[in-house]
Amino acid sequence: MRYSLLAPCKRFRPVLYLTTLEALGMARHQGRHGALALECIHTYSLIHDDLPCMDDDDLRRGQKSAHRQFGEAQAVLTGDALLTLAFQLLAKDPSSVVGPMVGELAKASGIDGMVAGQLLDMEGNVEGGSLHQLQEIHRRKTGSLISCSMALAGHRAGCRGKEIHSLRELGSCLGLIFQIQDDILDCVAVEGALGKTIGKDLEQGKLTYPSLLGLDGAKARLKEEVNRAEELMNVSPLDPAELKPLLHFLANRSH
Amino acid sequence: MRYSLLAPCKRFRPVLYLTTLEALGMARHQGRHGALALECIHTYSLIHDDLPCMDDDDLRRGQKSAHRQFGEAQAVLTGDALLTLAFQLLAKDPSSVVGPMVGELAKASGIDGMVAGQLLDMEGNVEGGSLHQLQEIHRRKTGSLISCSMALAGHRAGCRGKEIHSLRELGSCLGLIFQIQDDILDCVAVEGALGKTIGKDLEQGKLTYPSLLGLDGAKARLKEEVNRAEELMNVSPLDPAELKPLLHFLANRSH
Repeated sequence: MRYSLLAPCKRFRPVLYLTTLEALGMARHQGRHGALALECIHTYSLIHDDLPCMDDDDLRRGQKSAHRQFGEAQAVLTGDALLTLAFQLLAKDPSSVVGPMVGELAKASGIDGMVAGQLLDMEGNVEGGSLHQLQEIHRRKTGSLISCSMALAGHRAGCRGKEIHSLRELGSCLGLIFQIQDDILDCVAVEGALGKTIGKDLEQGKLTYPSLLGLDGAKARLKEEVNRAEELMNVSPLDPAELKPLLHFLANRSH
Repeated sequence: MRYSLLAPCKRFRPVLYLTTLEALGMARHQGRHGALALECIHTYSLIHDDLPCMDDDDLRRGQKSAHRQFGEAQAVLTGDALLTLAFQLLAKDPSSVVGPMVGELAKASGIDGMVAGQLLDMEGNVEGGSLHQLQEIHRRKTGSLISCSMALAGHRAGCRGKEIHSLRELGSCLGLIFQIQDDILDCVAVEGALGKTIGKDLEQGKLTYPSLLGLDGAKARLKEEVNRAEELMNVSPLDPAELKPLLHFLANRSH
């Protein structure tokens, strides 16, 4: 659990959660359980997705993937334990928000969210995939937990219906930006900088934004989404100044 | 998820949970989320434990195990989805009990409970194991979720500290009875009646009560634990008359 969870990486979901909390007027320390829970869920999903029966990846976060380091059985169990720990951590938040937070995180991670995304992703390893199919995969596989990071902060800060909905929508847009840039980096980055196997998407014939739209088309699409995110920030209940640096990091990151 | 979850089986954990709720003066329908959550957790653990990299079992609940029916990737994801669904279900209970219930279930299922039990169980496939080692495996692998079923009912019914503790202790004793009888059945039962591969424990050199104590020794131990459970029932906060039929089913079951 420590090996996979504590390896150097961006911590994008916890950072997004904590930044959103601050933009909603709360203190960072009030978000420590939620931040840890999000990173546990993300890490579990990487461990299971890397398994030989799934994407069969050898490298993750700049080191051997969990099953390469400890064997398959340990990797499956480590993922299970991290997934479970996420909910154990959320249960420590104040009782009035635990129910909505657990519900939000479970919906984003489970069969309506990340699990469905991974299933679609594996089935999508065929030629003739469409942009619609790609978006559906991303919306669930990576988008749902990123979107959830913002909604979770909303619940933690006591937001309700419409506010939570607009946080989810903005988070979903940030998730799309994250993924398009991820696909672009898989084409152009250097292995050492990214900390995972690169060029793998193309090699496996996976659907990506550059494979469907060309590299320039993907970059143009990224720009459109950044504009949309800036608009969404102005109508949501939060202070946009807190979130803009994160948006620009996302769109311009090189790792 | 449906294939594994809805296959015919005892539903022991949900039944124990609902019976305990009734023994604490609540109505069965108030326990539907918790009962489902427990069965989701139990089913996920069977699916993952049956995987080729773990116990490599072909038969479960009278049908092919999940990975034999759908492949390994689907089996891993199905388990993940069921584990996640369990917490999504608990989040629907009244807000005052969600936190304690999620915390209790996560602790019983995760690295302090079932996951640790499965790890110890795999490491225990060596000669020279002791009764202490066997008990430690069982306490975590099967005992923790059975004990949790009673504690969860306590939280749902608004019990506190000492009461929850005594429910956990009684549940732990029932878990031990369940496991000793399971080990005995693995020696003596007919494959069709049990719905899973039998004689497998001995074949794999696993620690079991009969392999350590002999069949008669295991039966004597079972009887001791039944007596202890009856004593524990009299000091716990519940109506023992509701639970006694379940205790006698447990100790005398043939499947």
